[in-house]
Amino acid sequence: MNLTLFPVPNLPMVEPGDNLLDVIDAGLLSIDESLQANDVILLAQKIVSKAEDRYVDLNSVLPTDEACALALEVDKDPRKVQVILDESNEVVRQRPGVLIVEQKLGFVQANAGIDQSNINIEGIDGDDLLLLLPIDPDASARSLRSAVKAVHGIDVGVIINDSVGRAWRMGTVGLAIGVAGFTALEDYVGGTDLYGRELLVTQVAAADELAAAASLIMGQTTEKMPVVIARGYHPVEPADPALQGVRPLLRPKQLDMFR
Amino acid sequence: MNLTLFPVPNLPMVEPGDNLLDVIDAGLLSIDESLQANDVILLAQKIVSKAEDRYVDLNSVLPTDEACALALEVDKDPRKVQVILDESNEVVRQRPGVLIVEQKLGFVQANAGIDQSNINIEGIDGDDLLLLLPIDPDASARSLRSAVKAVHGIDVGVIINDSVGRAWRMGTVGLAIGVAGFTALEDYVGGTDLYGRELLVTQVAAADELAAAASLIMGQTTEKMPVVIARGYHPVEPADPALQGVRPLLRPKQLDMFR
Repeated sequence: MNLTLFPVPNLPMVEPGDNLLDVIDAGLLSIDESLQANDVILLAQKIVSKAEDRYVDLNSVLPTDEACALALEVDKDPRKVQVILDESNEVVRQRPGVLIVEQKLGFVQANAGIDQSNINIEGIDGDDLLLLLPIDPDASARSLRSAVKAVHGIDVGVIINDSVGRAWRMGTVGLAIGVAGFTALEDYVGGTDLYGRELLVTQVAAADELAAAASLIMGQTTEKMPVVIARGYHPVEPADPALQGVRPLLRPKQLDMFR
Repeated sequence: MNLTLFPVPNLPMVEPGDNLLDVIDAGLLSIDESLQANDVILLAQKIVSKAEDRYVDLNSVLPTDEACALALEVDKDPRKVQVILDESNEVVRQRPGVLIVEQKLGFVQANAGIDQSNINIEGIDGDDLLLLLPIDPDASARSLRSAVKAVHGIDVGVIINDSVGRAWRMGTVGLAIGVAGFTALEDYVGGTDLYGRELLVTQVAAADELAAAASLIMGQTTEKMPVVIARGYHPVEPADPALQGVRPLLRPKQLDMFR
């Protein structure tokens, strides 16, 4: 398998309501490229959240006593803590400067994956602006995949990724938070090794591995490229609905030794 | 940046003492390819361990009382538990069927990263054979990088990767366990975002992101391709020796909330 990843260049700043497929098609056209069958489109969470208008103006947030108390403990803006709590199932770890939660979708992330960088809205001080995760990133991914099918008549995979911190290791890596038309967790149960012995480690987080590769290309700051095309990996939508989307990548809390 | 990853095909089963550069060069030649300046060579840990003869014959292991007691608790072969303990600084989590340790090099991994699949040695029952991590994977990576420089006169990056499990998420992902000629942890401290605000998340685990991409291509079982070339990412050896190798990716235990 030869796998090529390239960024979609010349993207505009995405505004609420923008059609992401139009934006991607225009960017690809600018380099005489176009989507092909079996491409995987990888999108930074931020661009999806912007298109879906997931902004919150902190001036509109009235923190509860609970949020104010926690804000004191973790040394954060009480209004931001309120938004984090609203987006979360529970707090997993807290320390001054650190608030790690289980986000409502099940992701264990600092600050519920809420962004405060690279966002801007006319008329609001940037420091008062937050950007939440998409409400349902799998649905966002499915929507783009359907649009590609409708407009271009081809099947593609779609992964929405986010850069997140980890236990045990320094630095962020790209992880999948929304998946469509792609087997997020490849299962080799029942497989055998080169010598016919049963494989012990049998599940591979394929969507996370591709999300990580895309993050490397998306980069940071001014050269930010929020959409990457992966070509050469043939994505397959699992037939079983229970295996579709990002959910197979989430370790059930009762099986997690690190909560 | 266009990034292409492709496997080195037609590799033989690597034997102890094999010269990995010779093996890689022959595989590339078979598809009319050759290493180029700024390529990154990604190697599965297993092929490096095999070349370095990191096999252990369980018949030669005499478990201590401590290993036998722990083996009962985690329901594993006491001889294997002994080898895991010998390879570890401490046990991080244990449950029946699960033994997660801090491996001597600082990696938090199940079974200290010891393999039991896809290995074979003439005259030993495969079930009695283990394969340990390289003694010093950074040194293994540096050695290959130096050999490329000596033989081909070009600078490349080298990453040795392993597929490991994670907190919170299902499935394994490729992670870097040895690095040379590559900035494992990219640091954006002091950078600003598109709107001039200071970036908050500033460290990216670049070597892990590329290792993850390579794992996706290496795959599993019979189609296993233990060496992947990444072309299009320009690797840079950090000038500061403290930033070289894989160590910058290891979160110091006292800063880790998930031990």
